[in-house]
Amino acid sequence: MTASLLPNYIAGQWVTGQGAGTPLFDPVLGTELVRVDATGLDLPEAFRFAREQGGSALRALTYRERGALLTAVGKVLQANRDAYYEISTANCGTVKNDTAVDVDGGLFTLGHFARMGETLGDQRHLLDGEAARLGKDPLFQSQHVLVPTRGVALFINAFNFPSWGLWEKAAPALLSGVPVIVKPATATAWLTQRMVQDVVNAGILPSGALSIVCGSSAGLLDQLQPFDVVSFTGSADTAAVIRSHPAVVQRSVRVNIEADSVNSALLLPASSAEDAAATLELLAKEVAREMTVKSGQKCTAIRRVLVPEALYDAAASAISARLAKTTVGNPRNEGVRMGSLVSRAQKNAVDQGLAQLMAHTEVLHDGRSAALVGADSAVGCFAAPVLLGTREPDANAVVHDVEVFGPVATLMPYRDMPQALQLIRQGQGSLVASLYGSDAAALASAALELADSHGRVHVISPDVAALHTGHGNVMPQSLHGGPGRAGGGEELGGARALGFYHRRSALQASTAVLTQTTPVT
Amino acid sequence: MTASLLPNYIAGQWVTGQGAGTPLFDPVLGTELVRVDATGLDLPEAFRFAREQGGSALRALTYRERGALLTAVGKVLQANRDAYYEISTANCGTVKNDTAVDVDGGLFTLGHFARMGETLGDQRHLLDGEAARLGKDPLFQSQHVLVPTRGVALFINAFNFPSWGLWEKAAPALLSGVPVIVKPATATAWLTQRMVQDVVNAGILPSGALSIVCGSSAGLLDQLQPFDVVSFTGSADTAAVIRSHPAVVQRSVRVNIEADSVNSALLLPASSAEDAAATLELLAKEVAREMTVKSGQKCTAIRRVLVPEALYDAAASAISARLAKTTVGNPRNEGVRMGSLVSRAQKNAVDQGLAQLMAHTEVLHDGRSAALVGADSAVGCFAAPVLLGTREPDANAVVHDVEVFGPVATLMPYRDMPQALQLIRQGQGSLVASLYGSDAAALASAALELADSHGRVHVISPDVAALHTGHGNVMPQSLHGGPGRAGGGEELGGARALGFYHRRSALQASTAVLTQTTPVT
Repeated sequence: MTASLLPNYIAGQWVTGQGAGTPLFDPVLGTELVRVDATGLDLPEAFRFAREQGGSALRALTYRERGALLTAVGKVLQANRDAYYEISTANCGTVKNDTAVDVDGGLFTLGHFARMGETLGDQRHLLDGEAARLGKDPLFQSQHVLVPTRGVALFINAFNFPSWGLWEKAAPALLSGVPVIVKPATATAWLTQRMVQDVVNAGILPSGALSIVCGSSAGLLDQLQPFDVVSFTGSADTAAVIRSHPAVVQRSVRVNIEADSVNSALLLPASSAEDAAATLELLAKEVAREMTVKSGQKCTAIRRVLVPEALYDAAASAISARLAKTTVGNPRNEGVRMGSLVSRAQKNAVDQGLAQLMAHTEVLHDGRSAALVGADSAVGCFAAPVLLGTREPDANAVVHDVEVFGPVATLMPYRDMPQALQLIRQGQGSLVASLYGSDAAALASAALELADSHGRVHVISPDVAALHTGHGNVMPQSLHGGPGRAGGGEELGGARALGFYHRRSALQASTAVLTQTTPVT
Repeated sequence: MTASLLPNYIAGQWVTGQGAGTPLFDPVLGTELVRVDATGLDLPEAFRFAREQGGSALRALTYRERGALLTAVGKVLQANRDAYYEISTANCGTVKNDTAVDVDGGLFTLGHFARMGETLGDQRHLLDGEAARLGKDPLFQSQHVLVPTRGVALFINAFNFPSWGLWEKAAPALLSGVPVIVKPATATAWLTQRMVQDVVNAGILPSGALSIVCGSSAGLLDQLQPFDVVSFTGSADTAAVIRSHPAVVQRSVRVNIEADSVNSALLLPASSAEDAAATLELLAKEVAREMTVKSGQKCTAIRRVLVPEALYDAAASAISARLAKTTVGNPRNEGVRMGSLVSRAQKNAVDQGLAQLMAHTEVLHDGRSAALVGADSAVGCFAAPVLLGTREPDANAVVHDVEVFGPVATLMPYRDMPQALQLIRQGQGSLVASLYGSDAAALASAALELADSHGRVHVISPDVAALHTGHGNVMPQSLHGGPGRAGGGEELGGARALGFYHRRSALQASTAVLTQTTPVT
């Protein structure tokens, strides 16, 4: 039996690709699920329709009205949540807790921006700061405004978050009044496609506001015009292709890139043995969690763990003890804590990266000998947690450079804080670093030291042990993205998320004119 | 006699290039002035020194202390102002009023950021917004901060503003704590080099904070590392080369581009004949001024003039009458209102662009028949004001696309406001548009309509006729840059200027830790 071919939605119509399609698999059972194909689509018309029809319809609404659309979208998704969990289990191999990070994380983020629409109110542009005098006489001033860009937002998304990856980008774009065309990663495109299908069929959004192309991304970038924007999450290699494309190079198309990142967790020196024990436990818990959630397939996951020299062995034991409890296998089995990777390609990439790191490290915990629960390792794409270690991290470039996109991390000792910060900076820019300690001043100082090379610094002290939101969880209130190797992008961060979809302009005019540009609230 | 070779300043030393050098000329007299050369410079060491020595020294200071350095730099420049006027006349062919736009405009902008240092006070990072709760319990929050990037700011600058172009970028960079390496355009590099020389010799800035490389830009981009930034002003072709460079494509080096732009002036429909006459006069005055200041060699100059159909002939007459008064010639001559272009290459480019436009337009005013004052057209690089016109602007793509970087503009009629806005948008994104009218609501509405395709909208109404700061003058308080064809960059805009030189990071921590990151003021 040939699996069904998922249709694309462009220019207000469902269109099936003209090719045979690329199959999507169940990474646990190895069975074929559905196929995707984008052959023969009229992409120029898809982009024109989204830009003109979708764009004008969205811009005609106020932020409050667009926020209400997002609320309605959220209700439709909530009503179909069970189906998404089933698709996620089948196509991503995730246990329920890991599906929640993607599906419920997406809904939570969508809700955040829906509520923001209410706050922004019935206006169609935003004031950016206050008016500034341009001379001694206050009659002539400069007022900066933010207005929605008159273009399309193209999203080329990663395989690890088919739900959250869509909504964390689409919610701020739609709230800003900018139509969306999403191209999900092929391996896990099913969930994205189903969500878009449910939203489209519910008839909530204006025609052209939300389109989806599944399969190859060929030809998509060629459609981009000067006022369009493109947001990409994925590998540094693909990011380089996007950055070099004529649309970007010659037409100044705005680009946001979120690429790979070798994130760190840093245990600060403690002032007492009790303190060391308590904060080490906070670190071990978070590292083990980050390594195993979504089988380590999170761009924000901890890859490097830095501890004071004297605590290297204790940290190895504490993390390993937690990893040993992680049962791996078929996510449909109640006793399983961690499912599979998303695909054979990812399994091969993880094996390859692991071998590369193992050539330069010692193995502190190897979960690969444990039996899979209810699954066959010859069929399923499973990776087990592996904790590596290096006692000479200064001279070990590979551990700061190779990101294994699976349940793998490397422990390393440091002599003093300057060395620790220097080691972390060898990551050349990361999405997130987490700090563990109980001295507020020392934590604040380290956080500020790492701020220039990290989009986010997550600080875990004993007083927030039960409250903190997690090293790897991306909250809509906080910036997501990182400099350098991490791609240099900025997503989310509350209302900052709208900036990418707006254009800033300085209106220089008499007070009488500027008064007329202030929205009535 | 061979003109003297200007030394470069890198890694805290004056270094002369090892080649014969490229001569700089007096564009009025045709004489050779000085030479520049960057052959054989140790660029890796220049960048390393700036990044490490200059960067750490600057970051150790507070914003207030760095602002004080800018004040001291301003005093040195003020003391040598006469020399800069002489160099400008000799190397740029500018009359005093035009030299002022560059020299005094640079000093004014520098002073703006010097004072901003006082406002920002004795801190080393900036808070970005307020802390946001990450859950119901207010104990764990997210606070965004801005910290200086640990890299170098490389400026590749344009020939038309050797002074302002340096300081409008260097002032925010240095205030942010980021060292500067400037590569001025060769044709007019002398003034930039002299200013840097005066500042360096005064011993104000920390070693490595300010470097200059004159001559070829070969090899400069190769030095860029992930936390460096590059800011370019110039042609779209060179911008494309910079955007495609591996440092940008692979290392996420942050780029700011300010490229060419076909800026517009729009006369709004009037409600009465008196109103039409008054606002047309405002338009004619501004258009004639913009066409002739710096011989039209301003990226912000008016290139397209849109008026209601009924006023096409009146506008042609009013603008032409003013242009006819513009005496062109040797800027050393008291009666001369407009000097030369900066070089033979620019003269050729203007002639070529003008011929291209003339093939598709009618000539409404041609200043080329007037005699030069005190100058020889066979020797000097002179362009005279030419006003062109097209009665069918919809079908005339070339007038919306070709930017003649000289005293040339094209007049066109429009039927109604939607057509006028559509015509302006055919520029594909511009630095600035100016609006002329007396109906505040209509002006505000048009300004907001054009905000997405313009970095700045300048509104001239009768009440600010004597107060407004000019269509083409870039004020430090307002954004400078534009989307699409204009390069997509953002410079200035008051404190917004510091954003390019800072990295944003979300610090997620307990209230106790976040309290420690708040600067003591």
